[in-house]
Parts: sequence; C-alpha cells; structure tokens
Amino acid sequence: MMKLSQIVNKIDAKFIGDDVEILALNSLQNAKLGELSYCDSQKNAKFLSQCGASAVLIKHDMLDLVPSGVIAVVCDNPHLAFAILSKDYAKELFVSQKAQKIPISVEVMPNVYIGQGVEIGEDTILMSGVFLGDNVKVGANCILHPNVVIYNDCIIGDNCHLNANCVIGSDGFGFAHTKSGEHVKIYHNGNVVIEDDVEIGACTTIDRGVFESTIIKRGTKIDNLVQIGHNCDIGENSLLVSQTGLAGSTTLGRNVVMGGQSGSAGHVNIGDFAQVAARGGVSKDLKGGKKYAGAYPIMELDAFFKLQAKILRLVKKS
Amino acid sequence: MMKLSQIVNKIDAKFIGDDVEILALNSLQNAKLGELSYCDSQKNAKFLSQCGASAVLIKHDMLDLVPSGVIAVVCDNPHLAFAILSKDYAKELFVSQKAQKIPISVEVMPNVYIGQGVEIGEDTILMSGVFLGDNVKVGANCILHPNVVIYNDCIIGDNCHLNANCVIGSDGFGFAHTKSGEHVKIYHNGNVVIEDDVEIGACTTIDRGVFESTIIKRGTKIDNLVQIGHNCDIGENSLLVSQTGLAGSTTLGRNVVMGGQSGSAGHVNIGDFAQVAARGGVSKDLKGGKKYAGAYPIMELDAFFKLQAKILRLVKKS
Amino acid sequence: MMKLSQIVNKIDAKFIGDDVEILALNSLQNAKLGELSYCDSQKNAKFLSQCGASAVLIKHDMLDLVPSGVIAVVCDNPHLAFAILSKDYAKELFVSQKAQKIPISVEVMPNVYIGQGVEIGEDTILMSGVFLGDNVKVGANCILHPNVVIYNDCIIGDNCHLNANCVIGSDGFGFAHTKSGEHVKIYHNGNVVIEDDVEIGACTTIDRGVFESTIIKRGTKIDNLVQIGHNCDIGENSLLVSQTGLAGSTTLGRNVVMGGQSGSAGHVNIGDFAQVAARGGVSKDLKGGKKYAGAYPIMELDAFFKLQAKILRLVKKS
Repeated sequence: MMKLSQIVNKIDAKFIGDDVEILALNSLQNAKLGELSYCDSQKNAKFLSQCGASAVLIKHDMLDLVPSGVIAVVCDNPHLAFAILSKDYAKELFVSQKAQKIPISVEVMPNVYIGQGVEIGEDTILMSGVFLGDNVKVGANCILHPNVVIYNDCIIGDNCHLNANCVIGSDGFGFAHTKSGEHVKIYHNGNVVIEDDVEIGACTTIDRGVFESTIIKRGTKIDNLVQIGHNCDIGENSLLVSQTGLAGSTTLGRNVVMGGQSGSAGHVNIGDFAQVAARGGVSKDLKGGKKYAGAYPIMELDAFFKLQAKILRLVKKS
Repeated sequence: MMKLSQIVNKIDAKFIGDDVEILALNSLQNAKLGELSYCDSQKNAKFLSQCGASAVLIKHDMLDLVPSGVIAVVCDNPHLAFAILSKDYAKELFVSQKAQKIPISVEVMPNVYIGQGVEIGEDTILMSGVFLGDNVKVGANCILHPNVVIYNDCIIGDNCHLNANCVIGSDGFGFAHTKSGEHVKIYHNGNVVIEDDVEIGACTTIDRGVFESTIIKRGTKIDNLVQIGHNCDIGENSLLVSQTGLAGSTTLGRNVVMGGQSGSAGHVNIGDFAQVAARGGVSKDLKGGKKYAGAYPIMELDAFFKLQAKILRLVKKS
Repeated sequence: MMKLSQIVNKIDAKFIGDDVEILALNSLQNAKLGELSYCDSQKNAKFLSQCGASAVLIKHDMLDLVPSGVIAVVCDNPHLAFAILSKDYAKELFVSQKAQKIPISVEVMPNVYIGQGVEIGEDTILMSGVFLGDNVKVGANCILHPNVVIYNDCIIGDNCHLNANCVIGSDGFGFAHTKSGEHVKIYHNGNVVIEDDVEIGACTTIDRGVFESTIIKRGTKIDNLVQIGHNCDIGENSLLVSQTGLAGSTTLGRNVVMGGQSGSAGHVNIGDFAQVAARGGVSKDLKGGKKYAGAYPIMELDAFFKLQAKILRLVKKS
C-alpha cells in the first residue's frame, strides 16, 4: 500500500489536493473509494463521470473529464503508469496460514499440492500432481485429472471435469509499452470463475482477468489446447472445439459453437446460438442464431461458400 | 450393470420382449451378445443387419431395420440416450489392487505415479511427475519425459519418446445434446494404442476412442502441441508437424505428412504418402501420393499456388 | 566416443587417411578439431572452405569441395548418416553427481525435482511440480509456476516468469529419412537460452537447438500455447501472441510482434519492429518496420485489406 504522494514520485506524475492512501488499483467502472484507476482513451472516458475511485491516472488533455471529488493524477502515459504500479499492488503469491475445508469424501492422490484457504466440495477427486493455489475453491463431484494447475483465487463449480495438464488462472498477456520499446507487465489481480458442469480439455489454458473474472458459464464444454484470454465471458452451454483461441475480453452468448482452430480478436461479442466454422476468425461482433465462416471478413456460412465457389469460377474463366 | 427394464425407465424408452442384463455399451459394428448399441442415422443403419448386440436404441421410424433376434429399444433420441447411459457404464476411474510388472532395469524418478496393473518393459525411463493410470502398458526402451500423463488402459510400444507434459488418453470431445441445449457427456471406454518407435511432442494431446482405440502406428513422429481426436487412426511413419489438429475418426495412411497448423474435419481419410502443406484444412478424403494445400476447398499444391497467383493477377487487372 | 574407422562401418561410408578419434558432432560452421560434421547440399557447401572439423560426411559428387586437412567421409546420404550417429553422440540424459548452487533465498515448494549441477539465483521461486534437468541455470527473481519443465543444460536469465506447464528444451522435430520411409531421430545436443525479463505462457513449448542454442532475447514476452522450433533466434522485446508457431531456425529482430495463431516456415528472417497480423503466415523474409498480413503470399497489411476488398467487389460484379 502506498500514499498517492509516494505513487506520483514513482511514476513521474502530479496531482493537486490532499494526500490519500491508495488501497488498490481497479477499473474505471468498478473502482471504489480508496482505489486508483486509469483512463487512457476517449473510449473509456465515458466511465469517468460515474467513477467512484479516489484518484484517476489521466493525460493532461483529458483533465477536464475528471469529475469533482476524484483526484486527477496527470501523467504522460496512464496505461504505463498503471502497469508499473500493478507490481506493487499485485496479490501476494502466497497467503499466510489459513484453514482449508476438505471433506473426507474428497480423494487426494499423491503429489497433490493444496494451498492455504482452499475449499473443496464433497466427492471431488484430485489426481496426482494437481496444484491448487491459495484460496482456490473447487465444487463437489469434480474430477481434476493429473497435473491440472489452478492458480490462486480461482473458483470451480460442481460436476466439472478438468483434463490433464490444463492451466486455469495464469496471468493474461497484458503489457504497457515504454518509449524505448520495453514491455511492462500488468500484474493480474482478477481470477477465473468456472461454473457447474463445465469440461475443460487437456493442455487448455484460461487466463485470469486483470481486475475482474474470466468467466466460463455453466454447461460449457471446452476441448483440448484451447486458449481463453483474460476477461473473456463464455456463455452457458457453449462448445469450444480444439485449438480455438479467444483473445482478451471476448464475450460469447449461450450455446455458441466455436469450430476447431477458430479465433477471435479482442473485445468482440458473439451472440446466443451463433456457430463459427472451423478456422473462422471473428474480428467484429456477430449476431446470434446464425452460422459464420471465413476471416477477411468473417461472413455467414452460405455467403462464404458461395464466395469461394465464385472465386474458383472467376479464375477458371480468366 | 443394469437390466434393460431399468435402462428404459432411465431414458424414457420402450421395448418388447424378454428382459436382459446389459453388460456393456458398444458400437453397432462390434457389439456382442449382452451388449446394447444405438443407431441414430441412416448412415449407420447399414451395420444393423449384421449387428450382434442384444438390444439397440433406435428411433421409431427405423424400427423395421432391426433384425430379428435383436431387441429394438425405441426412443426419441438414441444418441442422447446412449450418452446418458455411458455414465453408468463408464469404466471405474480406479481399479482394485492388481499386480504391477516393473523390471528392475526401469528407472523411476521421484514423484512418479504408477497405477494398479501397470506393466513396463525393460530399460524404460519414467521421469519426474509422470502419471501412469491403471492398466497402462509401456514397452521397453521408452523415455517418458517429466509430467507426461497416460490415462488408464492406454498402451505404448517399445522405443517411444514422449515429451514433457503430453497427455495420452483423455476423453474425446463427444457430447449428445438435449432439446434445451445442454450437452450430455459421452464417457469414453476406449483407449489409445501407440505402437513402436513413435515420438510424441511436448504438450501434445491424444484422446481415447469411444469404444475402440485411437491408434498411432509404428514409426510415426508427432510434434509439439498437436491435437489428435478420438478414434483417429494414424498410419505408420507419418509426420505431424506442430499445432496440427485432427478431428475425431480421421484416418491417415502410411507416411502421410501434415504440415504445421494443418487440420482435418472428422471422418476423413488421407491416403498413403499424401502431404498436406502448412495450414491445409482437409474436409474431404484425399488420395495418396500427392501434395495438397488450402482449405476452401483443399486442392493439389500446384493448383493452389496457381490459383493464388491468378487471384492476384485478376485483382491487379480490375 | 568412436574412431572414424568404427563410424564408417556403422554408416556404410568410406574415407582415405589416418584414423582419428571423433569427440563430437557439430555444424559445418562451428565444428572444431576432433569433431565430425556433414554437408548434404550446395546451400551449405559455402561453409566447407572454412570448416575446422576433422572430418566431414559428404556425397561423392561434392568431394572436390572438401578442403585439404579435412577428411572426406563419403556416403550416399550424409544427413541420414549424421542422424544415425547422433544417437551415439547424444548427451547423457543424466549426469553423474555434481554440486548444485541454490541460495537459501530460493523458495522450493514440494514435489520439485532439481537435477545435478543446477544453479539458481537469489529469490527465485520454484512452485510445486517444477522439473529442472541436470545443469540447468535459472537466474534471480524468477517465478517458475507449477509443473514447468526445463530440460537439461537450458539457461534462464533473471526476472523471468514461466507460466504453468510450459516446456523448455525438448528435442526439436528433426529426422532424417531412409529409402524405405522410416524417420531416424536427430538427437539434439544444443539447448535453450532465455535472457532476462522474459515471460513464457502456460503450455508453451520451446525446442532446443540441434548443436547450438534456441535463443529468446531479453524483454520478450510469449503468450500461452506458442510453439518455438529448434534453433529459432527471437530478438529482444518481441511479443508472440497465443498459438503462434515458429518453425525451426526462424529469426526475429527486436520488437517484432507476431499476432495470434500466426506462423512461420523454417529459416525465415523477420526484421526489427515488423508486425505480423493474427493468422499471418510468413514463408519468406520480411523487412522490418512494417505491418504484414495474409499467407499466400504474406503482404503488407494495407495491401492485404485492399486485396480482400477487391476480391469481394470482383465477385459481386461477376
């Protein structure tokens, strides 16, 4: 924990007003009193007027947008400043001693590591080599196959199957960049929340959110070698086929199907019951209830196959 | 184990005839007396006439195709009924105590887990963190690098190298779907059979078959981060380059080459000595002895490069 | 170790001159006295004139290119001969007892394996299930998350974060091929060198070099499920987004960005500050400082988007 006066020294920034203790970093939408947030684009500026943070890192030219009652901390690169501070405000990798709740019906095989404060539901099986970080919660009737790794603070619902060597809750791929081209790591304080009846494939990776949770809703099934970026929100009963990659903050509705080796750019929404064909590349929002294919741009499946056929015909004629 | 009368209560089905004990579920092709199978499409109906099962789950409108001597169990959705029952007939995750055969020439590093009934050949090395499920067989002169996971009942031949963190025998990505959009897991009772002289890359995943085996024939080399779906059959001396993904029931002949990031849709056959270029997407059967590229559709390599060149020329002219 | 007279018996080759002891195999560029190299193409023949090896495996028709002082070992398939010998000259999987250097500030969680001769810097954390092979060096202030596997002889710098289940230093996907279509493994004696301030994602795999090192320079950040082939050289401060795959001997300059699911063919160079869009497939050298997209062929980003738009227009007109 640092005072704002200490913070500005560290990141070469300025503020006017009384010094305050900063308890945590948080997003513009969710920051509360005692917290510091940042705003680095016009796109996020809409959240400023309702912001409940004590202070906000902001560029000089957006200073007027900071509402009264929030301290404006002026700096050249708020995103970079935030990244630098994220290390100081990172969660401890290990918490101090804290009671675990592990019913006797839980089967724990050899070489399992169970962190402080872990809670596990009835009849869950932890196979050999499983790692549960501090404060992890796993529901009832789950099977965690060998060498599954769950980073601290992540939450798994009931009746989930996690296949071998999958990784839940690693830091997202988020960095701020200096003028000289270095990348400053953003420490991720969010977690991953997996609801009930979810299956996760072998060697699949799901990153934790920056502040909030990466969410996998109930009934969703995820195949092997799938990547789910930080802050994704996957609707219930979705199917993600092998080697799919979802970039950060992708939102899927319910019963969405992502075909094998498909992908999404960051910050796109895919509607309920949409189906993306194998290799589909989603770089814009997609309405629900339809089938899509292709990547430049992605389009409805019928249109895509017609396009491919027409290209072949055109080439033959030429 | 359940009687047919118990089964029909569970899945809302009907049958006419004497009650029988159902010992196992099995495919239409391989089911024997005492076993229950299912038929949910005209495509599979061809196997009905020779079917050796005691009973078959079937839709009302295909009832006439069930041969005499086989009990027809009529239900709305045979595939869903089969999925529901697969949980009851799933293999136990752990078997009761059963002797292991591990010669003293086998090197077992620390933190290795060896299940009941495991048999290992001479001079094999099990590195730290390896997991061998119950009844796994590993041949002679193999190296299993750290944290390799082999699910129960899988079989590995002689002289195989399995690189770190690969996963052999996880359940395939198979589900039946309810009317309300939920996915019911199909428990997989098959296994993976890897023949002699095979190399498996780091973090590669190979799923077990539903009833039968996923097969990797002798001499085949598989790179890192490759996905091989349930019931695939990979011919001898094939090469699968990194990040290739083969959907379920893909069949490769001998000496097939799959380039990096290539893929296949399910149930396709790729002939002996065929070569698929990097990123090639195979959605139909391919004849052996030729080179292929592209994905919509995949075509011979020469044709593909000509097509790309012609498209560029057409666009320039326009 | 073998004498040249023993070697030629093993691989069906011939040489003229005095017998010598061969201490190691090495590349044409780096081989020294007492070492055996091979030359199997005109492309590599340029290195022959300066070659410091005691002997070179070579085809009969290139015999004249071998400088005096180097023994020409004539065989039909030098690459295959080299692969066969690579097994005899492979490093031992385990070294004999050798002191470790592990400061007391290093935190070692349960179920960690630390090989002979391992050296670790101050304040580094080894989480549960980590495997460090013999002679591995890890710098100071690193975090190795659970089940990270580092094969022997690899070197990790200071301040590196390796996420769970990543694999550093597995053998590259290198084989020589016999006339009957079998693949003979090339044992890799190189290593992986990761410099300071590097982050490696979960389930990412980085293969070791054949003779030399696969290199990840300082400040580079690598996302989850990325594949880096043998002998790649990744410049400083580069960003490799999830599911990228780099084939062997790819060279990246500094501050290169590889988008998600992008890839490279082997032996290509990508210049400083180049950016390859998601799914970009790099099959030729790319100049630095520009943005690229597409795969057949890859082109500048602007040109790629214009091309896609023109194709759509052409098809509509037709």
